[in-house]
Amino acid sequence: MIDAALRRAFLQPRSVALVGASGDLKKNNSRPQRFLKRFGYSGKVYPINPAREEILGERAYRDLKAAPGPIDHAFIMVPAAAVPDVIDQCCELGVPVATLFTAGFAELGEEGAERQRAMVARARAGGMRLLGPNCMGLINVHDRIPLTVNAVIEREELVPGPLSLVSQSGSMTGSILSRAQARGHGFSKIVSVGNESDLRVGELAEMLAEDEDTGAILLFLETFRDADTLAGAARRAYAAGKPVIAFKLGRSSVGRTVANSHTGALTGPDEVANAFFREHGIMRVETFEGLFEAAQLVMCHKPPRGKRASVITGTGGAAAMVVDRLGMLGADVVGPSERMLDALARKDIVISDAPLIDLPMGSSEGRYSTILSMLLESDHTDAVVSVIGSSAQNPQIIVDRVLKVESRHAKPLAVFLAPRADDALVQLQKNGVASFRTPESCADAVNAYLNWKSPGERPVPTEAAAAASKIAGGYSGKRLNERDAAELFAALGVRTAESTVVTADSGSPAMRTGEPGSLYAVKVLSPDILHKTDAGLVKLSVAAADVNVEAQRIIADAARKFPGAHIQGALVQKTERGLAEVIVGYRRDPEIGPVVLLGMGGVTAELRKSIAIRVAPVTLATAHEMIEDIAELGILRGYRNLPRGDCEAVAAAICAMSQLAYCSRDVLEAEVNPLIVKDEGGGAVAVDGLVVFG
Amino acid sequence: MIDAALRRAFLQPRSVALVGASGDLKKNNSRPQRFLKRFGYSGKVYPINPAREEILGERAYRDLKAAPGPIDHAFIMVPAAAVPDVIDQCCELGVPVATLFTAGFAELGEEGAERQRAMVARARAGGMRLLGPNCMGLINVHDRIPLTVNAVIEREELVPGPLSLVSQSGSMTGSILSRAQARGHGFSKIVSVGNESDLRVGELAEMLAEDEDTGAILLFLETFRDADTLAGAARRAYAAGKPVIAFKLGRSSVGRTVANSHTGALTGPDEVANAFFREHGIMRVETFEGLFEAAQLVMCHKPPRGKRASVITGTGGAAAMVVDRLGMLGADVVGPSERMLDALARKDIVISDAPLIDLPMGSSEGRYSTILSMLLESDHTDAVVSVIGSSAQNPQIIVDRVLKVESRHAKPLAVFLAPRADDALVQLQKNGVASFRTPESCADAVNAYLNWKSPGERPVPTEAAAAASKIAGGYSGKRLNERDAAELFAALGVRTAESTVVTADSGSPAMRTGEPGSLYAVKVLSPDILHKTDAGLVKLSVAAADVNVEAQRIIADAARKFPGAHIQGALVQKTERGLAEVIVGYRRDPEIGPVVLLGMGGVTAELRKSIAIRVAPVTLATAHEMIEDIAELGILRGYRNLPRGDCEAVAAAICAMSQLAYCSRDVLEAEVNPLIVKDEGGGAVAVDGLVVFG
Repeated sequence: MIDAALRRAFLQPRSVALVGASGDLKKNNSRPQRFLKRFGYSGKVYPINPAREEILGERAYRDLKAAPGPIDHAFIMVPAAAVPDVIDQCCELGVPVATLFTAGFAELGEEGAERQRAMVARARAGGMRLLGPNCMGLINVHDRIPLTVNAVIEREELVPGPLSLVSQSGSMTGSILSRAQARGHGFSKIVSVGNESDLRVGELAEMLAEDEDTGAILLFLETFRDADTLAGAARRAYAAGKPVIAFKLGRSSVGRTVANSHTGALTGPDEVANAFFREHGIMRVETFEGLFEAAQLVMCHKPPRGKRASVITGTGGAAAMVVDRLGMLGADVVGPSERMLDALARKDIVISDAPLIDLPMGSSEGRYSTILSMLLESDHTDAVVSVIGSSAQNPQIIVDRVLKVESRHAKPLAVFLAPRADDALVQLQKNGVASFRTPESCADAVNAYLNWKSPGERPVPTEAAAAASKIAGGYSGKRLNERDAAELFAALGVRTAESTVVTADSGSPAMRTGEPGSLYAVKVLSPDILHKTDAGLVKLSVAAADVNVEAQRIIADAARKFPGAHIQGALVQKTERGLAEVIVGYRRDPEIGPVVLLGMGGVTAELRKSIAIRVAPVTLATAHEMIEDIAELGILRGYRNLPRGDCEAVAAAICAMSQLAYCSRDVLEAEVNPLIVKDEGGGAVAVDGLVVFG
Repeated sequence: MIDAALRRAFLQPRSVALVGASGDLKKNNSRPQRFLKRFGYSGKVYPINPAREEILGERAYRDLKAAPGPIDHAFIMVPAAAVPDVIDQCCELGVPVATLFTAGFAELGEEGAERQRAMVARARAGGMRLLGPNCMGLINVHDRIPLTVNAVIEREELVPGPLSLVSQSGSMTGSILSRAQARGHGFSKIVSVGNESDLRVGELAEMLAEDEDTGAILLFLETFRDADTLAGAARRAYAAGKPVIAFKLGRSSVGRTVANSHTGALTGPDEVANAFFREHGIMRVETFEGLFEAAQLVMCHKPPRGKRASVITGTGGAAAMVVDRLGMLGADVVGPSERMLDALARKDIVISDAPLIDLPMGSSEGRYSTILSMLLESDHTDAVVSVIGSSAQNPQIIVDRVLKVESRHAKPLAVFLAPRADDALVQLQKNGVASFRTPESCADAVNAYLNWKSPGERPVPTEAAAAASKIAGGYSGKRLNERDAAELFAALGVRTAESTVVTADSGSPAMRTGEPGSLYAVKVLSPDILHKTDAGLVKLSVAAADVNVEAQRIIADAARKFPGAHIQGALVQKTERGLAEVIVGYRRDPEIGPVVLLGMGGVTAELRKSIAIRVAPVTLATAHEMIEDIAELGILRGYRNLPRGDCEAVAAAICAMSQLAYCSRDVLEAEVNPLIVKDEGGGAVAVDGLVVFG
């Protein structure tokens, strides 16, 4: 946790030093001083420049030590080569925090990254924290502290409000500020994090969760550099009633390449980011303007009970755009409930139960607001969208239809205005009602709300201790053979196919059971042979009587074909049949840590990329959600009179595998593939798999 | 085709009668007269109202016959009950066309629909055409003819320009007009079609394709009521170099329900609409503002050669939003080519080949425009996106970076401005450069362009004649049995599994070939028994020697279990094995007509809904595209060393089935399920299927 003194020095400095300040109005370096003056910063400003005695009418100092001090926050704009000396001076003077606009560090490659690491080490050793380098700085709107080089501040006013923004893209802070303020939104803190050499998104979100002027935290993300800290901050913000809303790049693979081009960070598929957001109570929006538009929608509300939205309008076409998009995003667009229809009928208002409540032209505003009011108070829906057509250009209509509805804050209410109606958008926002300029961002924000969940509970460790002791107890090498992997899975509580190992000099294997007619798979057991099937070292559907002969043949073949390989014998495994094959995986994601995955087995499913991912470990309830996420697993739920599969057993296997998160940081990847799912009550059996250690 | 005289009377009337005009400014009925006056309509206006001698300062007439005439276009606002008499008067006076604002027809249900049909019959018999009823009317901007009740015209000016809009939602015309004009776009014609009782979207698009002031045709669609006419109009517009851009509701199932609630039209999945648009050279956008923003992007351009886009920026985060979304939509975001890098190097400009060209802050505008210029001229990409950050608020930057680039019209160029920069958006548009307010609509429009194709060629009928004669030659009943269906497929040129029919009194069947070990499927042949497998009337994997016994058992069982059924015997079919099973279907869609479908076989594929749809008939090239569209069919293309499948044979089967479009309007649905795909060169064999006649 960031302590309160550091938070104050960082966000609310009483004195700032502008190191590398310039009086040349064309230079970025002149901006912080001009901005601080223009917005009426009440603290002390010390321009630092060895070549000048005065800058923009204020006394300048040759270096930090020459300034009267004490200095709460240094804003550094000198060339990269001069930075180490400035850091040293800061440490010497006890400056608690510095923000570095200076570029020329990790964004340039490995040499720059080394320079950056050295700088951070130097600062931390001197008891100092850093924001940046290569960042635009921060803006504290309420206290009028624009400690930034952001050009957008040349033209924009600063409007106080509840939104705080942390952005991994510096230029986006200006873009978001200018768009949001024009729409009636106000800000508290805006932070550009640059290279995140020291203070990262997570610690900044922590500070904002504690900041009393912040009502909602917006994140513009390219990558995760401190997912654990961010997770904790998001949970604290949730507890404090401050929604955290994220826009994250990298939904497509080219998007991930571009977003990470300067960091070179390895990233998993975008579903990993979704898993992270969902787990920690963060709402994710997919539209740019949705990032700030969604805040008013969700502030002061709790996560929904269902994924149901109601839409009311007097202008069918425009509302249908929102309905259609909500449907595409997976929301349930619901018509009025029976109960609501009855209550309306008692007021002589008769409407249909269609999913879109479309009042004909010329309906009284009173009727509109009566229905809207009931939607907001009714249990049958979780969020309400009001769509207004041409009449949105008339301010009185906005009042009559929406603003005079007393229950307008009873649940999230989104208003989309179909025509150009800039004034009405602002009028709504200023009166505390979320307004949307496009049907896309409206549906996006509503859908983000409908998918919002409170932060996930951590399940208790169950069999993890047994598995951990197994791992600690002497697994060596980087990749377990099938037999050892199966033992680890079994220790976690996953049922595995009955198997035994035949060696070159052992006799006929004794399987524990063996109904007549059972068939067996026989394959070579060797950590050194990867493509066993291609090499002819796997034989399927072997009858019990032939098992030993096949095993010996395979061992001999393997020795001949792979003379250097360590051959441990042949694995004989009972053939399992079921209703479906799934893959249950575990992975330590380089950005967000342990995740558990569920996918369909088989090659065609692989091509379709059907996959569900969650942060590990998971509860049974979450595991069942993952099963629901995979459309193809409908076959296990009684589709078309097919027999039902044992979803309980699949969920249990997912939970068990996810417990690897408790075992060892050394397990990079583990996968049961396939897990054979039997009919209801019949269980699920792991027949193959792998475990990779780091 | 609409004749020129009608087109002129409809779009450019020299005299209009306003039937039901009112002087009460609060009434909608007062609007057309006020609007016509305000915008300086140069023709004659005859207000018609039996109760008034003067309306809004103009002489009013008791009925149409009392007006001096001739009347080119009647605008009807009287109650529904009074409409038939007005129509009669129009016919008597030879008024060629009327637009009906009057509601109370098909939108109310069957009774209203009947009233509507009677009205149209009356008008057509009298040589007259109708727009509406229940529509807002039309606006001819260049000739200053706002023949509309649209409230948005109370507040908006009318700016002439190349866009024409046909909308199935009346209120959306105002919303689109107000948004687009504020962004620097101008319009030619705007038509609200209402119930489309007579003149429909297709004929209106036809008129616009001929209209010299129209440069691009925008369609806001809820449904298709005259797909064939629209197809022809779109092809004519394409030939005339006028892009047709559509926004269509109904991408989700709830969206389809809502869009069609007042028409009750049956609709197929949204892919059918996509197939229609693609086939006829119509671009489809998915974002609301994209509908008008895309026009400037594509006007004067031809369909692209590839799906490649290049993105250049000085502000990484904002551009990454566009790149990411382009990636999600399936576009190829490509970096500069080798050749371009070389050419730049010769100008001392060194950049990387990353997919996003991100120039560092402080790069000269000259460098930016040099690279942009090369992208626009290079063969390696099909469309270019320029993303501008904070500096977009400076008009000179827009000039330096974009407007001074001479090759800016060489290929589609989209400019997305990250901050609020309303003036710059207009500045670009007014200078003929497509500007975008959101990254979502920018990527949407670029992607719509990248997916644009010239209208599809109609393949020649091949085996269709043989199949048609088969159908004509005596298929009876509404559903063919497997044997007859197979014969029809064979007549179309689809290879079918070898089979024969055993009857109760026939001897052992003689299959034409029969390698030793061949297995057979035996199933009852009866048009009256639908769920044969459930009834135990299908036996698989029967050895040749046992075929006759099984056949006789099944015939006897069937007779016992289904005493009323007509049992034609048992079908004996050689078991076929292959690499994959697909479904090839044909359907006469109620909205757009014949389509051909390709899907994966099997239950899990059904749950995942992997399907490719095209307008039938298709060429071989289109059939191959369909195969590419199904991700799972990657297994046929040499995935992971799996043997390659016979994609040629699949494509041929798709083409063959699609030829049903040439055969008979009576075939409602036909499906080969499954088509077994063998390895490369091995062909593809239909083993089961159905044909349903209307």
